[in-house]
Amino acid sequence: MAVLESPPGYQILDNSAVNEMLATRSICVDLLGGKSSEWQTNEIGDGNLNLVFVVEGPAGSLVVKQALPYMRMMGESWPLPLSRAHFENLALTSQNRLTPGAVPKLIDHDSKLYCTIMEHLTPHIIMRKGMIVGTRYEGFVDVLTTFMAHNLFHTSDLYLSSIDKRKLVGDYSLNNVLFNLTEAIHFSEPFMKHPNNHWTTPQLNGYAERWQQDSELHAVMTKLKFKFLSEEQALLHCDLHTGSVMVTEDDTRVIDPEFACFGPMGFDVGKLFANLFINYYSQTGHEKSLGERDDYRRWILDSSIALWDNFADKFLTLWRAHDAARDDTSPIRLLGDEDAREAQRQAYMAELFTDTLAFCGTCLTRRIMGIAHNIDMLLIEDPVVKGTCEARALDLSRRLLIEQRDFKSIGHVIEVAESLLQTTPELAS
Amino acid sequence: MAVLESPPGYQILDNSAVNEMLATRSICVDLLGGKSSEWQTNEIGDGNLNLVFVVEGPAGSLVVKQALPYMRMMGESWPLPLSRAHFENLALTSQNRLTPGAVPKLIDHDSKLYCTIMEHLTPHIIMRKGMIVGTRYEGFVDVLTTFMAHNLFHTSDLYLSSIDKRKLVGDYSLNNVLFNLTEAIHFSEPFMKHPNNHWTTPQLNGYAERWQQDSELHAVMTKLKFKFLSEEQALLHCDLHTGSVMVTEDDTRVIDPEFACFGPMGFDVGKLFANLFINYYSQTGHEKSLGERDDYRRWILDSSIALWDNFADKFLTLWRAHDAARDDTSPIRLLGDEDAREAQRQAYMAELFTDTLAFCGTCLTRRIMGIAHNIDMLLIEDPVVKGTCEARALDLSRRLLIEQRDFKSIGHVIEVAESLLQTTPELAS
Repeated sequence: MAVLESPPGYQILDNSAVNEMLATRSICVDLLGGKSSEWQTNEIGDGNLNLVFVVEGPAGSLVVKQALPYMRMMGESWPLPLSRAHFENLALTSQNRLTPGAVPKLIDHDSKLYCTIMEHLTPHIIMRKGMIVGTRYEGFVDVLTTFMAHNLFHTSDLYLSSIDKRKLVGDYSLNNVLFNLTEAIHFSEPFMKHPNNHWTTPQLNGYAERWQQDSELHAVMTKLKFKFLSEEQALLHCDLHTGSVMVTEDDTRVIDPEFACFGPMGFDVGKLFANLFINYYSQTGHEKSLGERDDYRRWILDSSIALWDNFADKFLTLWRAHDAARDDTSPIRLLGDEDAREAQRQAYMAELFTDTLAFCGTCLTRRIMGIAHNIDMLLIEDPVVKGTCEARALDLSRRLLIEQRDFKSIGHVIEVAESLLQTTPELAS
Repeated sequence: MAVLESPPGYQILDNSAVNEMLATRSICVDLLGGKSSEWQTNEIGDGNLNLVFVVEGPAGSLVVKQALPYMRMMGESWPLPLSRAHFENLALTSQNRLTPGAVPKLIDHDSKLYCTIMEHLTPHIIMRKGMIVGTRYEGFVDVLTTFMAHNLFHTSDLYLSSIDKRKLVGDYSLNNVLFNLTEAIHFSEPFMKHPNNHWTTPQLNGYAERWQQDSELHAVMTKLKFKFLSEEQALLHCDLHTGSVMVTEDDTRVIDPEFACFGPMGFDVGKLFANLFINYYSQTGHEKSLGERDDYRRWILDSSIALWDNFADKFLTLWRAHDAARDDTSPIRLLGDEDAREAQRQAYMAELFTDTLAFCGTCLTRRIMGIAHNIDMLLIEDPVVKGTCEARALDLSRRLLIEQRDFKSIGHVIEVAESLLQTTPELAS
């Protein structure tokens, strides 16, 4: 297939080829220690797109992530550009500069093999897996709000001159195939009859039909799609869900920025919320006795409130300081006296909150109707229980999408999310 | 000055150097005819930025536009990148493809000398000059609405796949210095105390003070500035005013796309409206007897109504046809049945109308308070009459900015614009 022709120097790596590649890089040799023949290498990727190798030497370990010329979960029939490794490297470099400690350290990269070589996070696990078994992560709110506030603010027009901002937009403009994929699976397919869609059948057939025919929902989704496509507010992670977060009880790191692109800030924040809510509704399917996970559910909701509040606090703190440091004629500065400027910041945050809820609604739907579902729900064996959990997430999705402007506080959102546990009826078997 | 160091091969041209350059280009030699020694060359640029040469030979004539490494109107103290010639060439190529006949034909370009070589429009004059003396141009609405509808639609997410759209955004991302200049003079300086500002003194001192202190206006302007900076809806001309239009009684051409960049569509449409309104209010200063220009004023207002209506019609016609040609699972297609899709299009146009009014308000202010004023007003000798005309434009500016969402039709806008002729009092001398 012509589309899968690889560029010169590229080959799909196996364990021994990984070691050969690393043996030519002194920074990797020093970190691993010993001889390359002593290095233990294992391919551990369980994501959708790439190969991921853990390499362990006598002195240390590291991770090699290699882009494949196609989507791993779909096979060679779905080509995907290798260049995503370039954008991952670019974004990870930026994140390491702006939020060191919230992401894996970047060690090296191989531009011909489309490999990113980075810190081996151990004994970290994917946060989503920990949440499914009910583990609390007390530090994640602090790290993720720092990650979002710093990376979004510092790549936006609120911080950068328009000269620097436009240049940065150009740097990421050719990550367009992954951006296009994000558009299709979030904003289009789940609201159409589309062969990629699937859902819990027959329990959610009624929902699927409604989602494909609801003019009110379609009007909102079209507006949101154009916002996602056109509004290049800041450099997004663009795949910021609980599967892109690795945790221990006291460490939290955001991984996998290969979808990095410019877009509306609320997409990152809203996607994270959606994945917390999906886990929240899935708990009914994971608790061994009724109410066993009540405290955990409460923790998720409390964490969600803290997530917005801490994010907004950190974002506003950065903005106020930046604005105060500008002189009166700087175009980056807000207009008027400090009271006026604070009102402008609050108005901006209110819009960002509305966007966050709308994109949260988008992500809730796409994980239940679209091409890729969450293991939070997939691991629930009983289709009636699973469908019921998913119906609650869909009901929240629709309310957030339709009533996005009516929610004035995160507390109000959480009340509604909680009430759906009672009001969305259990589905019949 | 280091900033003015020129790249290899660049030199500022004079008449004979222009002929030497053209003599090496067979397409130009053929077009002009005869020998280069027979070519009559004159520098005629009266714009703010560049050199413009008209070259006439025995067989034909052409125009050479050369970018200078600084802003012509400000001198070497204000450097400006030569690369704008590249973006002008890029945009003019695109406009010639999408709207041939609405722009000068592109003949050739010299990338080392930063020259664009194009059709010599003759006997065209700048539309603004014709409007000042009260000339009607019956064809301009049709050409300008075609220009805007086709160029905006075909470079937007409504037409392009997000893969192609993002690539195109990248192509223009380094026209960032001119974009930054546009930001500063439209969205920041006129609403601050800034050394670049000037206005009719002392007549408009009260307005200037208010514009620099009005929190309500500042709240709107901050929101609009971020919309301009972030919302990369379509490839804008970005300097689409009556000074960028050349006309005869039956031909209309849009020139000077060197500011071409991605931004909100309403900026192009709104800027054009603003320049029509400035001319409208300036007529009081140009009529030789009271009411002499009443019919001409009426013509401007009627043309403004037609401008929006024809633009919206053409834009929607393109969109409907494009949408109908897509299959049901295309991400470019709108969602739902045809009634739902038409409602989505109408909602989009309503937003675009609101944006248009807001950016029109922005441009009205910047031409009266900011760095660069319009000769429509500058040619009025009596400062009291001039200040009165300008005060009306500022009153319209503020109403459009503050009440942008309250205007539901172009007819309503025109009524308000006309009423200000009566309600804005004549200033005292």
